[in-house]
Amino acid sequence: MVKVGVVGATGYTGAEIVRLLASHPRVELTSLTAKVEGSPRVDELFPSLRGHLDLPVTELPAEEVAERCDLVFLALPHRVSMQYVPHFLGSGRRVIDLSADYRLRDAALYERWYGARHVHQEGLKEAVFGVSELFREKIKKARLLANPGCYSTGVILSLAPLAAEGKLSGASVIVDAKSGVSGAGRWPGDSFFYAELNENFKAYKIGRHQHVPEMEMVLGELSGGQVKVLFSPHLLPISRGILNTIYVRPGGKVEAEALPELYRRFFEGSPFVHICNFGELPQIRDVRWTNNCRIGFAADPGGGHLIMVSAIDNLMKGASGQAVQNMNLMLGFEETEGLPKTVPII
Amino acid sequence: MVKVGVVGATGYTGAEIVRLLASHPRVELTSLTAKVEGSPRVDELFPSLRGHLDLPVTELPAEEVAERCDLVFLALPHRVSMQYVPHFLGSGRRVIDLSADYRLRDAALYERWYGARHVHQEGLKEAVFGVSELFREKIKKARLLANPGCYSTGVILSLAPLAAEGKLSGASVIVDAKSGVSGAGRWPGDSFFYAELNENFKAYKIGRHQHVPEMEMVLGELSGGQVKVLFSPHLLPISRGILNTIYVRPGGKVEAEALPELYRRFFEGSPFVHICNFGELPQIRDVRWTNNCRIGFAADPGGGHLIMVSAIDNLMKGASGQAVQNMNLMLGFEETEGLPKTVPII
Amino acid sequence: MVKVGVVGATGYTGAEIVRLLASHPRVELTSLTAKVEGSPRVDELFPSLRGHLDLPVTELPAEEVAERCDLVFLALPHRVSMQYVPHFLGSGRRVIDLSADYRLRDAALYERWYGARHVHQEGLKEAVFGVSELFREKIKKARLLANPGCYSTGVILSLAPLAAEGKLSGASVIVDAKSGVSGAGRWPGDSFFYAELNENFKAYKIGRHQHVPEMEMVLGELSGGQVKVLFSPHLLPISRGILNTIYVRPGGKVEAEALPELYRRFFEGSPFVHICNFGELPQIRDVRWTNNCRIGFAADPGGGHLIMVSAIDNLMKGASGQAVQNMNLMLGFEETEGLPKTVPII
Amino acid sequence: MVKVGVVGATGYTGAEIVRLLASHPRVELTSLTAKVEGSPRVDELFPSLRGHLDLPVTELPAEEVAERCDLVFLALPHRVSMQYVPHFLGSGRRVIDLSADYRLRDAALYERWYGARHVHQEGLKEAVFGVSELFREKIKKARLLANPGCYSTGVILSLAPLAAEGKLSGASVIVDAKSGVSGAGRWPGDSFFYAELNENFKAYKIGRHQHVPEMEMVLGELSGGQVKVLFSPHLLPISRGILNTIYVRPGGKVEAEALPELYRRFFEGSPFVHICNFGELPQIRDVRWTNNCRIGFAADPGGGHLIMVSAIDNLMKGASGQAVQNMNLMLGFEETEGLPKTVPII
Repeated sequence: MVKVGVVGATGYTGAEIVRLLASHPRVELTSLTAKVEGSPRVDELFPSLRGHLDLPVTELPAEEVAERCDLVFLALPHRVSMQYVPHFLGSGRRVIDLSADYRLRDAALYERWYGARHVHQEGLKEAVFGVSELFREKIKKARLLANPGCYSTGVILSLAPLAAEGKLSGASVIVDAKSGVSGAGRWPGDSFFYAELNENFKAYKIGRHQHVPEMEMVLGELSGGQVKVLFSPHLLPISRGILNTIYVRPGGKVEAEALPELYRRFFEGSPFVHICNFGELPQIRDVRWTNNCRIGFAADPGGGHLIMVSAIDNLMKGASGQAVQNMNLMLGFEETEGLPKTVPII
Repeated sequence: MVKVGVVGATGYTGAEIVRLLASHPRVELTSLTAKVEGSPRVDELFPSLRGHLDLPVTELPAEEVAERCDLVFLALPHRVSMQYVPHFLGSGRRVIDLSADYRLRDAALYERWYGARHVHQEGLKEAVFGVSELFREKIKKARLLANPGCYSTGVILSLAPLAAEGKLSGASVIVDAKSGVSGAGRWPGDSFFYAELNENFKAYKIGRHQHVPEMEMVLGELSGGQVKVLFSPHLLPISRGILNTIYVRPGGKVEAEALPELYRRFFEGSPFVHICNFGELPQIRDVRWTNNCRIGFAADPGGGHLIMVSAIDNLMKGASGQAVQNMNLMLGFEETEGLPKTVPII
Repeated sequence: MVKVGVVGATGYTGAEIVRLLASHPRVELTSLTAKVEGSPRVDELFPSLRGHLDLPVTELPAEEVAERCDLVFLALPHRVSMQYVPHFLGSGRRVIDLSADYRLRDAALYERWYGARHVHQEGLKEAVFGVSELFREKIKKARLLANPGCYSTGVILSLAPLAAEGKLSGASVIVDAKSGVSGAGRWPGDSFFYAELNENFKAYKIGRHQHVPEMEMVLGELSGGQVKVLFSPHLLPISRGILNTIYVRPGGKVEAEALPELYRRFFEGSPFVHICNFGELPQIRDVRWTNNCRIGFAADPGGGHLIMVSAIDNLMKGASGQAVQNMNLMLGFEETEGLPKTVPII
Repeated sequence: MVKVGVVGATGYTGAEIVRLLASHPRVELTSLTAKVEGSPRVDELFPSLRGHLDLPVTELPAEEVAERCDLVFLALPHRVSMQYVPHFLGSGRRVIDLSADYRLRDAALYERWYGARHVHQEGLKEAVFGVSELFREKIKKARLLANPGCYSTGVILSLAPLAAEGKLSGASVIVDAKSGVSGAGRWPGDSFFYAELNENFKAYKIGRHQHVPEMEMVLGELSGGQVKVLFSPHLLPISRGILNTIYVRPGGKVEAEALPELYRRFFEGSPFVHICNFGELPQIRDVRWTNNCRIGFAADPGGGHLIMVSAIDNLMKGASGQAVQNMNLMLGFEETEGLPKTVPII
């Protein structure tokens, strides 16, 4: 059994990792840390864990965490994560970081989008960007894995086959994204009070969401040229799930009806990516609670655009599920190990 | 007091008209009809009306409805409405039709989109399309008013100033629309059961929603040329409200920051249309339960697109509220008469 | 026009008073105060007010508020309100206080339940407890009105006729209450984040909710003897509304089927209280957004209990609506003036 | 591998059984039947099953189902189930019936509550009532298992220890129950449309819900005397979960604070029943998606009542989860086999 720790175990992504690993057959949770009062048992904080995990959540220093673990998940806010990562790497531990701190390879870009100088720039160079389906071989060897943002994961998977075919160079790409509220984390501030979001819907940060640079970085690399994404996030009054509606005016001729075949070939051997038949559109309910990404295609009667609709669960494939998938790759396990097989019907 | 009847008084749009007119100071409800068993009082069907209106809802034949009313609202399904309209017009009554039956001026287009031959084609020629802010003078004199679709209203208002400036000819127009479930009416079928929609979100009928031809018809007329709209509707798990996110690659140069000023000028004298400052985005909560349309603008960092976000309440400005606004115009009342002034904060 | 101010104008109850008074025909809002940065216009904070009210919300000192107003609503937290009330009374202003600070006549009881010594004990003696239907004559003359708690209003109205008949002395009274989340106010803390409440339901403070002593005080007075209430509040994942299910094992014989008649007689002349026929049960949707209280009755097949179900909107009859109703009484207006007549059907 | 079929595989309880068995390590699904058009694959109907189960759902006659299976789950409406059960038993198959058809041992009682003569009265005598924790030994040997109703399961588990202690004889028992909408099944009629339930809450069938006789039957048997339950169900605007608030005026002295200890002893060896410390109250979120029942206790300041709050997931412990638990018992498997270990945190 590989010994694993979770730093930041009480936020939504941290706790979701904990519950996944609590029933993972090949790892043992040995350390849960967070800012907490006292040392509550994790099944007191999350009663559905009762009977399955009773570790305490503590405020252990990083040294003690490192002592207890072979691999550490960091589920911390950006700018905080990079304070801890050097220590864990230095102690010889492997790290999966769910923050944004190691996703951008360019320190200046990081500073522009996250408003702080990066304190661990060698880490930026070393980190492997963890869209599991795209970078399996690098991930297997990674010491430091930068787990992608929830929006980025869905967008990148939905566009990677086109990028790889060179159809995104010079393309116009609009992503109209809609996310459930857990994407903002567990303590998102008072604009996330129930009565503020209930029966409401809104756009925010159009054209200036911090996940844009990582999407453009990865799609540009796949594409072999610059890719620009006009990204419009919206906030859905639901707990979990992201649906992206994507409009591409491609750089070069693409037959829309041929996309399912193209995508299926691209994602062959990727059990978590499901490609719909042309005209069939995924819904959030198809993927919630799963680690799946489901991608469908619609026709533009005007003929100018390729239209993709994709759905993921933002806490699973968009965060903790993909983090566990990446851990499986890093540790040489089956990619699907410990990830939920079948989930509730409603 | 003008005598008014509502045919189809128990659906969402019909009932919303009823409750608006029940407190309208210048009209008297004299006839409520629907397919019902017995003749229940309307305040038994909708208990919040208790103390304000106790008319029975009956299955009266059209002749008797006509006898009791000066003006009739039809809140019936498409293909049903056109069975009744000729009779009411023939009896000298004015008609506000909330169905789609008189929105398209072209009978062949109607047949293509609604799957039935139009049985009252003179009506198509006579009917006035009732986006109140755009066609006030025609509406004042209309005998037969075709109340616009909920999606169409929001989209047309959001694009009319650009159309009138000639910036939509040859433009690429993408509308990513999100609607609450009441847009589908009161008996929408079992895919609208609570547990099917709750915690879900989906796209549907991308590029082939039946409101597209009326949008394109009106925008084309304003524009003086053909306008094509790529329209992607989505279903929100909320009761009321539509938010449109609109991406226009304009036919000709337009300064994005100049849009608020352009729109304010265009909508001067229109109390229900609110134009936000550049960068401020409307939310559904800003307009729910009101007859307002609120329009905001965002910047495209890539520079290629104009981005508009607009919000309406689908049952108010998108249906029954605009129908009452149109009635006010037709009867020479103040445009805002009988429409809610201030609404609940949450 | 009577000049009115609202202190605490940005919380849910304060803002709901503001929007009601913005369309009240006989008062003029002259002062809105709250803890705010800058002096934002109220229609910037609550965009649905746009076109109807554009007063700034400021941090004016109480003296200036008093100068501008004849009557002041205080929508402040308990323990804060009593810091301001003496000043307004001393300046000759009439006060409607929505906090709990003047609801209990017994200072020791206040201290026990609210954890602070009362600093204005003469106020406790003078204040009139404002269940409008029960205390109209006193309310008309009140200088200081203590607006009841949201739970208390529904419970007291549902039991007052029994209390007045002497059937609650020695009775067992269980109230199983369910409230929407706005009952907790606008800044209720992080256990009110969307994802914490969504798809959840829970009981809290069973037997120890702070509204119990005011219920027992009023029902005891009506009853002429002590009344004990076992009160179990629960939190519903909806924005507004309270439904109470009440089980009474009465002190003395009561024919359950006779209750509607008894209640109708008791509430004769009270336009906001609606009594259902026996066996018909109110729902939250029947009263949301209205100032109504709707009360129904069910049969206990075992015969031992009277069962009442009642519904109110917690922000209307449970707070701001009743506050305006009380203002109407205090100022000699029609009781229903300025309160919404008909509300949206869904 | 034991061969298992599900009759009625497309309703909520049927589909939930299917998804549980699809990842159960010791059984093989061999037959899925339902009223369907064509023979759609189950992972087309429920896309989250994709990659895990691709059986077709068909309209096979009972004979062919029996040929393919060792054990059959019936997830059919009441009155329909009893048409099929005799055939499966006659073919030597074991049956787990999720309908109400075999829960009551008294045919006259069945007829009174379900409005139809029972056509298989020997079945009534043979059937074992499947609250797993109470009747393990009988369940192990059952040929025909009557799976309890969702409400009944939560109520019986919450009261069984008191019943077994003889404290319910002559007691007053009030159960105020609140259920998510999936309890009504997948095709519950138009009062379950989204906009009818959203932002609403209501009581229904107070004192006359059809689950009452089975609760009273089982509690009476445990108690050794008649037990009467005043049962008030309510409908929550959430998909899943039941919370019961229970008020008992016991027949005989019981120390409220001693209840946790009493309940823990009673449920020793029952991994799915979790007893809270005194004063700690379960929420629906603690149990949703799990097969757990969580029971807490509150104090009545008046001292007259014992107060229990219990929570289950109505589709898991309240239906399909308990059905699988019962299957495990019947087949000699570990009781927890194939039931979800850890579930999503939100």
